[in-house]
Amino acid sequence: MSPETSQHLQSLREHLEQTLKQSLELPETCPEQLALAMQYSLLAGGKRLRPVLVLLACEACGGSWKQAIPAACAIEMIHTYSLIHDDLPAMDDDDLRRGQPTSHIKFGEATAILAGDGLLTRAFEVLAGGLDDKAVAAACCVDLANAAGPEGMVGGQQADLEAETAGVRDIDHLEAIHRRKTGRLLCASLTMGGRIAGASPEVLERLRIYGESVGLAFQIADDLLDEVGDEQKMGKGVRKDASHGKLTYPALLGLEASRQRAVELIDRAVGALEVLGDQAKYLREIASYVIHRDH
Amino acid sequence: MSPETSQHLQSLREHLEQTLKQSLELPETCPEQLALAMQYSLLAGGKRLRPVLVLLACEACGGSWKQAIPAACAIEMIHTYSLIHDDLPAMDDDDLRRGQPTSHIKFGEATAILAGDGLLTRAFEVLAGGLDDKAVAAACCVDLANAAGPEGMVGGQQADLEAETAGVRDIDHLEAIHRRKTGRLLCASLTMGGRIAGASPEVLERLRIYGESVGLAFQIADDLLDEVGDEQKMGKGVRKDASHGKLTYPALLGLEASRQRAVELIDRAVGALEVLGDQAKYLREIASYVIHRDH
Repeated sequence: MSPETSQHLQSLREHLEQTLKQSLELPETCPEQLALAMQYSLLAGGKRLRPVLVLLACEACGGSWKQAIPAACAIEMIHTYSLIHDDLPAMDDDDLRRGQPTSHIKFGEATAILAGDGLLTRAFEVLAGGLDDKAVAAACCVDLANAAGPEGMVGGQQADLEAETAGVRDIDHLEAIHRRKTGRLLCASLTMGGRIAGASPEVLERLRIYGESVGLAFQIADDLLDEVGDEQKMGKGVRKDASHGKLTYPALLGLEASRQRAVELIDRAVGALEVLGDQAKYLREIASYVIHRDH
Repeated sequence: MSPETSQHLQSLREHLEQTLKQSLELPETCPEQLALAMQYSLLAGGKRLRPVLVLLACEACGGSWKQAIPAACAIEMIHTYSLIHDDLPAMDDDDLRRGQPTSHIKFGEATAILAGDGLLTRAFEVLAGGLDDKAVAAACCVDLANAAGPEGMVGGQQADLEAETAGVRDIDHLEAIHRRKTGRLLCASLTMGGRIAGASPEVLERLRIYGESVGLAFQIADDLLDEVGDEQKMGKGVRKDASHGKLTYPALLGLEASRQRAVELIDRAVGALEVLGDQAKYLREIASYVIHRDH
């Protein structure tokens, strides 16, 4: 990644951390344990990939990234709630997340469920209330809810749980799960950012293709890291997926073909942005970074 | 309740049942078990009090109730998700709801959590996408999210769980819980209906007072029914709250003073609507019905 891009991303991330913190400054009517649980998970660091993509998509379409901050916060809240609920005993039953105890280990199961519900709900308050153009705000709420809901992320998690017992049939089945579980939310990052900058429907479709391709490539990279990565850099147990019997890209395609598929997807992502010219340079660099990261 | 009011409510409810059904006609990308679980809980009947109040508030402010249908569906989805999550083993651990197995008993815990998440998310899609005036749509999303989120319903559920171990201190503590757990959502029913009809901020405040008062009166009536009601009519175990050691209005104030408090609250609710004249007649009748119902 070029020093200019690194610096820009760093400055976006610093601004995001500030705003995420402020977004959970709740009045006393919110019980303290609930507020602490929401903050614990939302402010636990992480790559902030989704909110950064919101801001970069807005810039790529000629807007200022500051306009898109409410959408960036909202999508990180949705992503965080999904992690809390996915970690629950009835779901993936994980004790560690980013090297720290998961929400239900730290706060108990009831508060973890409510912290997830609270973040999911608060996301729409921040989104609908924070954007100035109310037609754009309403369109973003539809985007985000559709991507995160039963046709998108929540449906993907259900399909993933069902595949754990029934098995993954083939690569199409695996991709159909990832498209919903992680891909749709990445697409919404891009299209919300574009909408806020006033992008045309044609450009929104290009952004969607970029998001879809990067999303799948990201998943392949995750599977590859799980297979060959270093436990310390990942902050979680490596080969956990394989040992849980979850089917992954390397398991279905082999290591080399998986790497090849990721490269093709990134080419498709970068190609979709041609129409945006130099404005989309950060999005292009992020796309390549996704498959070259080591954690 | 007058025959005219009964008939009007009946026709609103029939329309609501239709629209709620349509609101969950999801494409194949939603896994079947998840769609079934969402439908199972959303279409399980119930009083439909919150969505009916949305429609009546819209009428009371001079609008047509048909305009407010998306907001009515959205609030019933939020209410339904909260019941699914409240019933979970880690929360109230209930096996029966309205005389039927709860979601996690019928579909398993993971699917029940996801069905709740799905309904909560879908609510904002229906709301933001269904209302024609996008400024009103965005304002309704803020209303609903604030009422349902950590400062409102989710916060109330957390406070309720904490009170189960730590105990309820006094009547103010009990009311502070109910205001958040059930009151805020009832207020949002009223203010969303008013907003959709273009009500002034002064009228919205009157509607809020009505909603707050009816909400508390409704809770007292529930506590009284739990204490003295008939198990068959209620469709759930009676004296369940008392046997769980939960503090209730009758336990804190006695039966007679509880009834008196409910009557005062209904007077306050009806008084708040004076400014709306005859247009608010249905809301007035509903208010009295709340404390005279037997199930």
